[in-house]
Order: sequence, then structure tokens, then C-alpha cells
Amino acid sequence: MEDFTFQCKTKFIFGKNTENQVGDETKKYSSNILLHYGKGSIKKSGLYDKIIKSLDNSGVKYTELSGVIPNPRLELVKEGIKICRENKIDFILAVGGGSVIDSAKAIAMGVPYEGDVWDFFSKGKKITNALHISTVLTLPATGSEASSATVITNGKRKLAASSDFLRPVFSIMNPELTFTLPKFQTVCGISDMMAHIFERYFSNSKNVNLTDELCEGTLRSLIKNARLVMKEPENYDCRANIMWAGTIAHGGILGTGRDEDWASHRIEHELSAFYDITHGAGLSIIFPAWMKYVYKHDVNKFAQFGKEVWGIESENKEETALKAIEHTKNFFREIGLPVSLKELKINEEKLEEMAKACGSVGNFVKLNEKDVLEIYRLAL
Amino acid sequence: MEDFTFQCKTKFIFGKNTENQVGDETKKYSSNILLHYGKGSIKKSGLYDKIIKSLDNSGVKYTELSGVIPNPRLELVKEGIKICRENKIDFILAVGGGSVIDSAKAIAMGVPYEGDVWDFFSKGKKITNALHISTVLTLPATGSEASSATVITNGKRKLAASSDFLRPVFSIMNPELTFTLPKFQTVCGISDMMAHIFERYFSNSKNVNLTDELCEGTLRSLIKNARLVMKEPENYDCRANIMWAGTIAHGGILGTGRDEDWASHRIEHELSAFYDITHGAGLSIIFPAWMKYVYKHDVNKFAQFGKEVWGIESENKEETALKAIEHTKNFFREIGLPVSLKELKINEEKLEEMAKACGSVGNFVKLNEKDVLEIYRLAL
Repeated sequence: MEDFTFQCKTKFIFGKNTENQVGDETKKYSSNILLHYGKGSIKKSGLYDKIIKSLDNSGVKYTELSGVIPNPRLELVKEGIKICRENKIDFILAVGGGSVIDSAKAIAMGVPYEGDVWDFFSKGKKITNALHISTVLTLPATGSEASSATVITNGKRKLAASSDFLRPVFSIMNPELTFTLPKFQTVCGISDMMAHIFERYFSNSKNVNLTDELCEGTLRSLIKNARLVMKEPENYDCRANIMWAGTIAHGGILGTGRDEDWASHRIEHELSAFYDITHGAGLSIIFPAWMKYVYKHDVNKFAQFGKEVWGIESENKEETALKAIEHTKNFFREIGLPVSLKELKINEEKLEEMAKACGSVGNFVKLNEKDVLEIYRLAL
Repeated sequence: MEDFTFQCKTKFIFGKNTENQVGDETKKYSSNILLHYGKGSIKKSGLYDKIIKSLDNSGVKYTELSGVIPNPRLELVKEGIKICRENKIDFILAVGGGSVIDSAKAIAMGVPYEGDVWDFFSKGKKITNALHISTVLTLPATGSEASSATVITNGKRKLAASSDFLRPVFSIMNPELTFTLPKFQTVCGISDMMAHIFERYFSNSKNVNLTDELCEGTLRSLIKNARLVMKEPENYDCRANIMWAGTIAHGGILGTGRDEDWASHRIEHELSAFYDITHGAGLSIIFPAWMKYVYKHDVNKFAQFGKEVWGIESENKEETALKAIEHTKNFFREIGLPVSLKELKINEEKLEEMAKACGSVGNFVKLNEKDVLEIYRLAL
């Protein structure tokens, strides 16, 4: 087991009608906030009205910034930073999914920084301060309601930054808010959660059986509930298990004591930067290809994955490993996710350019530009 | 799944030589602290010298209060409160196991309270403030390095209090510090961890398969590493998996969305209050008896426990449930724990008095004084 430091300060307020607590919780930190959200689905669902009512009741003044889109853009982040500075705002409430939360995190770290906020992403500048942020989660997927990370898109560059300063001070999670999610968004969320676990599970760290167990258990629960939610989209407990799994998957605890990989995320980021596809759909294409490309590095681990997660019983480890990869791909297909680039009408054309932009990635297996290109080709 | 609020603010600093960071971490909060520890084993091991050196290097002034004993006593807590007030101390560093940490928590909540600190335990007075505490953990068992709870003994009363204010701001965890633990202390710790999971696992909350999986996985890992540590007490990874499992077991995450039980802990508390036995040894006696007494309430859950944790394959659920209880008892016996009261030379004599003191407990099955007496008798 590797040495580690782990701290997740976020207060999770989970359950029915919890969105009505947003005003009181916010008031503990600020009475002058930025209310950040997407393209307005929260208005249609009635969530916006509830949030406003709760903020008003608690005497919290808010300035609105809407318009966050999937693969959230740097331009809007910069607009948010300007608004916060002009209005002396010291707290950001993100209402939405991972894109809105990531956008809020980028604004939060940009406000106290004199330089260009993109420095944190492109130059790896260390984050030493940020406004407090909080969330009302509407789309379980990225784990951003708990995580230290944010991913922002600037032109064709999609990059990540991370710091414990970016963990939300509170996250409100009502599974009922996810009953009406389109099926495709639900399954993209599940793919993203599973990917967050894979990035930690496939590790060179030895003798980490506790976190192996936690990873495998969370994966099994996700697979079970993914199948159930297809049939019963308004099953509260099913939605609740999925929503909380998203937080567990990326809150950090599953990675404690382990070297993590993150190659597939970087490889997918180029894909969604070039083609603006949904992250979870990119991951369901890339992960099986990545697995096929790297499994020989640790056949035992992939065989363990096959046995524990997919219930494959075989004496032959190579066979179990290969079957596990097939099961993963078949599962993604079964729940309605793409598993090849051609399904998204992406062909050979830009693969080399994307591989070049991606560069060297990974930790479980260190991959260079050529390896990345091979993985893109396996995904065609 | 039940609604819940969960927050664990503790920063976990885990790994080799991490005790040397104690000065720098403490300095972030205070430069005038109470250094709280037990009967001096930290002096023999050399840990005391390292702590003092680190505190000195960081310019942290400390006042010492040693002498905490297992089942920590109210008298020493009151002495600690007095010392903190007289010396304007605003931070407590607990170096030791659960008893030292629990004692530190009680001091921390007593200092800002004008009344008798025992009010929090005996009258259920709400904790609204406490000094910051931190820990250097030497005995993985109680999970107190992460938890919101403290248990203090006053005469023959052993009672608990709980508040998020009591969670340590940081906990330093070096598995190497546990290499030289006596075998009995190691296994009592493991029994305590497993008990913390049982209290959450046996729940009436339905459709909580994510946390079921996390509970079962943590139990399997503990069982595996308990057997290994018997043979290899200086196996770092084995000690590390056990130490981190103790934190996972009682940090709170395994109980999210679940009604918890806590009958067995209350039943054991009377046992250790009356006979001053080690908590973990009391739990290994009480839990199999409790299981036998209540399993009919939910045979399916006990059968699930048998299948997932002990690998029992049987079509007959009743049989699987009963076998699971036998496996639990046999496992405790195998690693050197007592599984009956007579092994500790405790007979019928005070059982009625203890049952009366215990009163009504439990949530999975609500137990009254007569039920508790039956469980004590089953444990004879």
C-alpha cells in the first residue's frame, strides 16, 4: 500500500426534498453568492423555483450566471470570475451536473488569482486559494460534488486541475431529481462512475485488498442498479444507490493507498475536445480498447476483475481477463452506450492529431503517443 | 435507502514515518496544546521522543497529561479539562489508541462547557462546541481517529456521546507503529472493527446494496488480513489494510443511508463497565450470542452475510444463517478471542444487574431488559 493523505471536507445532505435546505446551508458561509447553472432544465423541472425560494427565505442574495454546457468552456468561467469580482461575491452555488460544478470550481479558483485562470490547467500552477463552492446535484456522474477536480475546455484543449480547496463545502443530493433524466444521460453517468473506479482499480500498487474490495463492490452495485434503472427509472432506492455510488467512486476513498492510472480519461478528453461528445459515451468506447491494449501487463488483475466483478469462473487467467473485457463492452452496449467510434461517426481522420495532442499518459502502463494512437484505432 | 447527512472532516495522513509531520500539522491550529497519552508505552517504543522533537521543531508548546487506561475514566477527563482551562490550551493531541482519543474528545467538549461534562453522556446534552483534537494512532480498533463518538467510564457506567465537533482535524496513521502490538490487542482491535460493521450491516433499511457491498468487502478484507497478521505481524501491507479498515469501519460511510443497530455495543458496555474487560474481547463474546438471539428477524440478511462474507453455499437460508453465526464464532476463537463469558471467569452472578443497567437497546431488533439477559445467558 502506498502512503497517502486523504481529506474530503464535503458535507453530504442526501435524501428527499433536501434541496429545500440550500438557503440555510448557504447562509452559514455567505449572503452574497453566484448562482451557477446550465441551459435552463432546472427551470422546467421546478428546481430553480425551490432554490430561489430557499435562498430568499434565508436572506441570501444571488447573482445568476447560467448557460454552462457539457464540456464546460473557459469563456463562461472568465465571465463568472468577472461577475464575482465586480459584485464582491465570495461563494458559488452550482445547481446541475458535473459540467456546472466544474465550471463553478474554475470560477472559484480564478477569482482570488491575479493571472489567467487557464494557468492552473495548462501550466499546472498550484492552487493555493479558492472561493467556497457548494452544489445541488441533478446528474450523478462525474463525482464532482465530492471531488477535488475540475475539467475545463478551451478551444480544442480539455484539461484538468485539482486541489482540496475545490472540494464543495456541501453537496445536496436528492435522488428524486434524477427520475426524469433522459436514459442516455443516466447511462453516460454510470459509465463515468465506472471509469472513475477503473482508473483507481487498475493499479500497480500491491497488497491493497481492502480498496480492491471497495472498488469491486461499488462496481457490482453500479452494474446491478444500472440494469434495474433501465426498467424502473423512478425507483427511488435504485436512483439513490446510483447517485451515492457516483460520490463514492470519485470522492477519493477508493484510491487511498493506490497509484492511479488516468490514461483513459486523458485519451477520452481529446475525443470530447475534438468532437464535443458526451464524456461518459467517450469513456464507454475508450475503456474496452484501453483494457485490450494493456491487459497483458497484469493478467492476474484483469482475471480478478473478471472473477469478482463479472462472476467469470475459469481456471485460465488469460481467458478470464479477455472475457472480462468482453463483458465490460457488452454491458456498456446493453445499457445503450456506444462502444466504437464509428457509432459516433468518428473515423480515422483526426486520430493522429488527437494522439499527438494527448501525448504520454498513464501510470498502470505508461503510454506514449503511438500507444494512444493504437488505442484509438482499437476503438474504431 | 434512508435520508442522511454525512461529513467527515478529518485529514488522514497515512504511511511510513508520518508521525514526524505532527508538529507542522498541529502548528496550523495551535501553538499551545495538551499532549494526551496512556501509561507510557509510547515512551518505550520511541514514539514519544519523535513526537516531542516534531512539536519542538515546529515551536508548539505542550502540556502533558498521561495515564489514560482502557475504558477511559471520567476523573482523568476532568483533570484534563482543568489543565486546559488553567493553561489556556485550545488543542488536544491524542497519541495512542481509542481510549486516549476518546478521553481527548471528552476533554475537548468539556473545556468550553460550564456544566459537568458527564451531562453529555448521562443526560444526552447536545454538544455545540469543542476544542480541536488530533491523533497519532498506535492501536487500530475503535475508529475513533475518524469517528464522531467517544465512550467514557464513570464508576460502573460506560456511556457514549457523539457529535461531528468531535471528529479529529487530522489523524496520523503509520502502520509500522502497530508491528509490536501484542497479539491479543491486535485481535481485540479486529473484533472491534468487525463489530462496527455488524452494527451497520444488520439493518432494517431496504435496498441499500451499495453499502451492503462496502460492508461485506471490508469484512472480507479484515478476515483475510487478520489470519495473515497472526503469521506475519511485521507485514506492512497487512498491517496497513487492517489499520485503514478500522477507519473505514467506523468513519461513517458504511452507515450512510442505513438505520444502525448498536445493541451489541450497549450490551458489551455493561460487561466492560462491570468487569473492566477489553472492549474487543467483550464484543467477540456478545456478537455471536446476539446474532443467535435475533437472526430469525431477518433470515435472508443473515443468509446473505453467510454467503457473501463466509462463502457458505447452501440453498437453505436458515441453515446458511446458522452456519454464518458459527463461522463468526469460530473465526473469533481461531484468532485467539474469547467467545464465552466463562472463558473470562464471568458467571451468572451479575447478569441480571447488568441487563437492568443496560435497559432497552437496539434498532434492528428492539430488545428489552429480558432480551438482554437472555443474550448474556446465551454468551455464558
